[in-house]
Amino acid sequence: METIDALQIDFKKGDGLVPVIVQNRETKEVLMLAYANAEAVSRTGTTGFAHYWSRSRQSIWKKGETSGHVQRVQQILIDCDEDALVYLVDQTGPACHTGARSCFFRQVGHELGTQIP
Amino acid sequence: METIDALQIDFKKGDGLVPVIVQNRETKEVLMLAYANAEAVSRTGTTGFAHYWSRSRQSIWKKGETSGHVQRVQQILIDCDEDALVYLVDQTGPACHTGARSCFFRQVGHELGTQIP
Repeated sequence: METIDALQIDFKKGDGLVPVIVQNRETKEVLMLAYANAEAVSRTGTTGFAHYWSRSRQSIWKKGETSGHVQRVQQILIDCDEDALVYLVDQTGPACHTGARSCFFRQVGHELGTQIP
Repeated sequence: METIDALQIDFKKGDGLVPVIVQNRETKEVLMLAYANAEAVSRTGTTGFAHYWSRSRQSIWKKGETSGHVQRVQQILIDCDEDALVYLVDQTGPACHTGARSCFFRQVGHELGTQIP
C-alpha cells in the first residue's frame, strides 16, 4: 500500500479539521466518527493512541483518557481527496460513552427502496 | 437493533450536512466518506440507492449516476449523537473515481507510537 506523508492531509476544506472513521482493526466494525486537527493527528502518530479534536469543548482529547477505553492505532488510511482518515484500532473496552461496543448501535428506519417498481 | 426515525438525524451541527461512512455490507471494508443533507437521505430511503450532497458542486448527486458504480443501501446506522451515519451497501464496480475499490487505498506514514518507551 502506498504511503503518503501526514503533511499532505487537507485540513483546509474542513476549517482545520478532518473526519476520522474509527474502525476495529480485526472485526472491521465501525466504532465511531470523530474529528482531528493537525495536532491531534500528530499526537496520535507520536503516542500511538487516538487523539481527536472536540468541536464542543474546542480542545484536543485523548480517547479513553478518563474512561480508560483507549484506542491503540495500528494504521491510518487516507482517502483519494486527502480530506478523510480511517484509524484502524485495537479498542480497549466499549468505544461509545453509552457503554455500547460501537457508537452506531441503532438504525434509521427507512423502508429502503420501497418506491422502486 | 433499535430503529429510530430519519427525522431524528441532527443536521444542525454540520450546517445542514452529516458525514456518511460508506461500508461494504459483506466485507465491512470502508469504501468512502461523503456528506448528506436531509433531501439526500430521503432520496436514498425512497430509491434504495445512495445519494449524497456534493460540497464542491453544491448539489445532490446519486452515486454512480454517470459511472454506473451505484450503491444499493441495505441498512443505515446512526451514531449516539445522531450526527453521523453509516450506509451498509452493495457496491457495483469500484467505489472510488480513481478506479480503486475503496477511496482509502493509501496509508499515512506515521511511525505510530515510536515515542512510547
